[in-house]
Amino acid sequence: MRAGRALNWKWHYRRLRADCGSLRLDAPAESLLAGEVAQVARGDATVKVIVTRGAGARGYAIGAGSGTTRIVAAYPAATHDPAHASAGVRVRRCTLVLSEQPRLAGAKTLNRLENVLARSEWDDPSIAEGLLADAAGRVIEGTMSNLFVVRRSLVVTPDVARCGVVGAQRERVRELLGSAGFECQVRDLTWEDIEAADEVFLTNSLIGAWPVARLDERHWVPGPVTRRVQALIAEHDARA
Amino acid sequence: MRAGRALNWKWHYRRLRADCGSLRLDAPAESLLAGEVAQVARGDATVKVIVTRGAGARGYAIGAGSGTTRIVAAYPAATHDPAHASAGVRVRRCTLVLSEQPRLAGAKTLNRLENVLARSEWDDPSIAEGLLADAAGRVIEGTMSNLFVVRRSLVVTPDVARCGVVGAQRERVRELLGSAGFECQVRDLTWEDIEAADEVFLTNSLIGAWPVARLDERHWVPGPVTRRVQALIAEHDARA
Repeated sequence: MRAGRALNWKWHYRRLRADCGSLRLDAPAESLLAGEVAQVARGDATVKVIVTRGAGARGYAIGAGSGTTRIVAAYPAATHDPAHASAGVRVRRCTLVLSEQPRLAGAKTLNRLENVLARSEWDDPSIAEGLLADAAGRVIEGTMSNLFVVRRSLVVTPDVARCGVVGAQRERVRELLGSAGFECQVRDLTWEDIEAADEVFLTNSLIGAWPVARLDERHWVPGPVTRRVQALIAEHDARA
Repeated sequence: MRAGRALNWKWHYRRLRADCGSLRLDAPAESLLAGEVAQVARGDATVKVIVTRGAGARGYAIGAGSGTTRIVAAYPAATHDPAHASAGVRVRRCTLVLSEQPRLAGAKTLNRLENVLARSEWDDPSIAEGLLADAAGRVIEGTMSNLFVVRRSLVVTPDVARCGVVGAQRERVRELLGSAGFECQVRDLTWEDIEAADEVFLTNSLIGAWPVARLDERHWVPGPVTRRVQALIAEHDARA
């Protein structure tokens, strides 16, 4: 949230509603949720919305239950080193291999132990993010971000149908790129594809778009498409 | 817990400690936990112990944090239809395919969305459990139980190194079978292996051992090995 306006609300709400559907949860009405967000957060803030199945009996069966529980929480606005967005970040390859579960892929659920284990692989503060691949060697995402690569003006982000998260920022960036005349494809990427890329950048709702400046011994300087994406996000946020 | 005695405590605590290790959590000391269990539960009860990483900042990084949180809860003793243990249960094949994550396999974590989705596949009360396989067609477990099959006096339970849970009851049953002179192997099972089995049974700490009486059109009558396992569990519980 910036200056009291929820940023990228459309994609956040759309993702929440879709994920509630995958998990057989009733999604809160958009106006109800928007009202609650406005109630807890003012000015600049990070807002986190969690929908749970609510109280129920032991066991895995979905009972009649007492209805869903909503947790709408506001935190201070996220602060990241501005150099991450300007000069770019160093990333690493995680050794953890993402498991494939098409029934949950794409959803931002609370089952995030893989991300916790992957993030625990390094504590070098000069490394901002770790990239994750699946068992077939497809690079899917970062531990907390979606991945985009650019080669010869074609932008590609990995398919997240088997694992990974459909980030709200990913969806907005795909849309903004399309509106700006770029071709943005969803397809599988290997480590070789990443090393061969002209530009690599990471997205999430709090970081915006970070250029990747280094992966192992491969170095990049932030490129024109990444800069354009940053500008498109800023313009879109300003219109929110 | 029965008559104030925690049943199969050894394997429960061993599993908890091992799983805490996998998740980089400090396991509570055995005596501390035993004291807390005795404090919340009396007589006959179902006890549930949850260890979390405790309060922390947003994000996936494991911070210094405030130490783990223990939730030790007592519920009324579980009640199951006695016919499930005597005549056996009907089970089904779940369509959900278990994902493979060797880093988490075996652990009883709170990331159980697969189990919730699998259990939601049926609401026919005549079906007591659903069996789950992985993408390679290996049958791994039930949604809430471990699986054993018997063929010509050899007992087999599936490997849970890629997915599945190392149930405390599974471990006790393996040990009790060994002590009683049975050969109990851990190896991969296909649906054909199950159909070809002389006996099939399911275990967990609350159900003990349930004979499987029916899977699709395959019917079984509870066999001697299953009966022996039930007796071994009862004897072991009586000595707790």
